[in-house]
Amino acid sequence: MSEVTTRAGSRRREQTRARLLDAAHAVFAEVGMDAASVEMICERAGFTRGAFYSNFESKDELFVALVAQLTDAKLEEVAVRVRDLGPREDLDPSLLVREVVGQSFGANFEPHLFSELRTQALRDPRLAAAYLGLQDAMAGRVADIIRHVVEVYGFRVRLPIEEAARLLVDVADDTCTRAILEGASPAQMNATINARMETVAGLLVEAP
Amino acid sequence: MSEVTTRAGSRRREQTRARLLDAAHAVFAEVGMDAASVEMICERAGFTRGAFYSNFESKDELFVALVAQLTDAKLEEVAVRVRDLGPREDLDPSLLVREVVGQSFGANFEPHLFSELRTQALRDPRLAAAYLGLQDAMAGRVADIIRHVVEVYGFRVRLPIEEAARLLVDVADDTCTRAILEGASPAQMNATINARMETVAGLLVEAP
Repeated sequence: MSEVTTRAGSRRREQTRARLLDAAHAVFAEVGMDAASVEMICERAGFTRGAFYSNFESKDELFVALVAQLTDAKLEEVAVRVRDLGPREDLDPSLLVREVVGQSFGANFEPHLFSELRTQALRDPRLAAAYLGLQDAMAGRVADIIRHVVEVYGFRVRLPIEEAARLLVDVADDTCTRAILEGASPAQMNATINARMETVAGLLVEAP
Repeated sequence: MSEVTTRAGSRRREQTRARLLDAAHAVFAEVGMDAASVEMICERAGFTRGAFYSNFESKDELFVALVAQLTDAKLEEVAVRVRDLGPREDLDPSLLVREVVGQSFGANFEPHLFSELRTQALRDPRLAAAYLGLQDAMAGRVADIIRHVVEVYGFRVRLPIEEAARLLVDVADDTCTRAILEGASPAQMNATINARMETVAGLLVEAP
């Protein structure tokens, strides 16, 4: 196989994977993780089961990949927003937190799926490792964002950065779960998460 | 019915309830919430199904009552420990936190059951309200403990007390879930929770 064909194949493979993830996203949102089947996802994506299984081992693996993709995109958005802020002399920590966090949990934020993965992980040891890995990755990205803020603004963080990041991830997680249980609308959920992230971030940082 | 007979009846009823809760505790621990049946609990307690249903509407209601009883007992233990400490001039906040929190998550702490209730609540709207009520009650008790500490030691709390209490409950909750997913032993779980509670409490309080 020539290099050109291989590249085309790899690109096609990526597109198949992306379409399966999109289809799964829609199906999970409509019927939930339990009721969603590989058949439903394939039908929605317009692929055969063969195409599915050449990309994912199981529905669970696809679900983890989807949640990872969504949380990653969300955290990348926050990271970009932080980088774009640039140094400002007059910036007070709570203002920065509001600017960065306040806009982060808007469109395409899917706490239901993350919470669903957590629930499944508690029932199924095979998913536990995936969920823990995802939480670690999130905490790692949040830690990078905090490190950047510390460097640029010279804020002092009251905890070791890794612990501060873990705290933010935990509180976001719990706030989502609570909001879901309360039957909050997406708008209410975003407002609650923003408020709590601001509170905790305000607790964590001190101006230089 | 004379008053004496009514009292005896009420005492007997309480005893039946307590024995059913103990039996359920043992059965849930052995086979988990899903596999546990009303029959198994009755057999263990030595009661008929009639006795069960004159005390609880369902297995779910009993499960909520059990988790409420266990968390309440645990928080009462902490409250007593705090009251017993008495005023001390040399006390530094992190020391107080270590003394109070460090011994609190030892014997009879059942994070698995609380976590199980949370998981069930995410699947079953009828349990969601019970879980949220329980979390509110816990946060309320933790807030009372913090208020006592503030009064006696004059520590400053960096957040409104209700929010500080909520933060501690959230972090404890998430730490338990994570420890369960990691397959931590009860001893490891206690050590992890203690360490995190100390960290967060240290973040929350300042010496006068």
